[in-house]
Amino acid sequence: MCELLGMSANVPTDITFSLTGLMQRGGRTGPHRDGWGVALYEGRGIHLFKDSMPGADSEVARMIQGYPLKSCIVIAHIRHANVGSVNLANTHPFIREMGGRYWCFAHNGQLKDFAPEPGLFRPVGETDSEAAFCHLLNQVRCEFPESVEIEALLPTLVSVCDGYRQFGVFNTLLSNGEWLFTFCSSKLAHITRRAPFGPAHLKDAEVTVDFKAETTPDDVVTIIATEPLTENETWTLYEPGEWKVWRDGEIIMQGRV
Amino acid sequence: MCELLGMSANVPTDITFSLTGLMQRGGRTGPHRDGWGVALYEGRGIHLFKDSMPGADSEVARMIQGYPLKSCIVIAHIRHANVGSVNLANTHPFIREMGGRYWCFAHNGQLKDFAPEPGLFRPVGETDSEAAFCHLLNQVRCEFPESVEIEALLPTLVSVCDGYRQFGVFNTLLSNGEWLFTFCSSKLAHITRRAPFGPAHLKDAEVTVDFKAETTPDDVVTIIATEPLTENETWTLYEPGEWKVWRDGEIIMQGRV
Repeated sequence: MCELLGMSANVPTDITFSLTGLMQRGGRTGPHRDGWGVALYEGRGIHLFKDSMPGADSEVARMIQGYPLKSCIVIAHIRHANVGSVNLANTHPFIREMGGRYWCFAHNGQLKDFAPEPGLFRPVGETDSEAAFCHLLNQVRCEFPESVEIEALLPTLVSVCDGYRQFGVFNTLLSNGEWLFTFCSSKLAHITRRAPFGPAHLKDAEVTVDFKAETTPDDVVTIIATEPLTENETWTLYEPGEWKVWRDGEIIMQGRV
Repeated sequence: MCELLGMSANVPTDITFSLTGLMQRGGRTGPHRDGWGVALYEGRGIHLFKDSMPGADSEVARMIQGYPLKSCIVIAHIRHANVGSVNLANTHPFIREMGGRYWCFAHNGQLKDFAPEPGLFRPVGETDSEAAFCHLLNQVRCEFPESVEIEALLPTLVSVCDGYRQFGVFNTLLSNGEWLFTFCSSKLAHITRRAPFGPAHLKDAEVTVDFKAETTPDDVVTIIATEPLTENETWTLYEPGEWKVWRDGEIIMQGRV
């Protein structure tokens, strides 16, 4: 199993604090030693940092923890390999261009005997996760040859994700840079921080941050993670089958299948 | 105009030295202030570091210069914007997945009035370069719905690149992780380093490296660049219309149109 970390914010926000907590689980406080990755949208572009080294030992991870890139949508992942060997091609998040936008995806769980027909989008590595991402994009492209808004797209996303549950566990984060779609098959939690901001203390490292010093009163920042990352805040747990679409730190659509 | 840097090697090799020279041209010894990027294949996976900051001032650039990722195929680029604003989405190299491989592309030059019909691959940013990359991939996919070897693919690559010359200057580096295709419409140079290795001195920075200390006698490392990066070695200049395919540091096919 792996761990997911997502962020949706209404202003470009530094995710260093949450990433620091997540990286500790990559080989120090957790068993997720098999690589990590983080994707940060910047306008229509995307930064993608990945490494097949454990997050806790990775030079690239240390660099990005010390270099606060800011973004409104972030997807990060630490990997505990179950399908596919430990190498860069098998490391989440995965990215594809569709309709002139970069789509980004990360998955927690395992899909057993999942072997879809090859389509236009094909996995580069060997993971069930990347196979699911490509299959999902192939379904979307088949149904919507031209780009559509999230409102029109959503029934397809939910139905495809729901279908994957018959193969196993499928918690996922997906974005095209405009919105962040989140689907919980077993475990996902979120917290929205807004004024008045207070301090937060990481579960996995001796780090406390006072968000009041880092934010303005209008900032809205939501963090989504497999498990709560801080110990002095109240996180909301997703129910199995629950999905939420985030934009600017707020839920714009939600439901449950 | 921009500057290109490519590497093909028979063992995973650190490109830090050449990258250091190139980055100086990103705002210090050259005018290419409008972003930079470097892609390094690792197995079937790919690392992609980009920034819309000038290479000479970029924190990400400093980090990768201090962190010697090794690779057999590298494509790097520094940008001097002519088409498209200065932002991450407009920064080379560009990457797409086709046939289960990551294809990577960077371009030096400018294509005037180049407006191909939209295909399956679409540009995310506004540059003529990314439009050409997507158009090239659309042509390849149209002709070869399933992956083929470079020998079968090459006539299409050469003919498409040759066609772009009617729109302007098209010097390019293209790879799918197996080979490095290089096409010169006006300016490109290469040097192949092999035993006995000697010292090399950068033109653009007070840096000398003794490759003898960094290599084994069997290493073959070719660097391809818009202009020679060192001042004490003899680079070979491409002729206009000349193309070469590199693998493991050696030319496996070449010709001229």
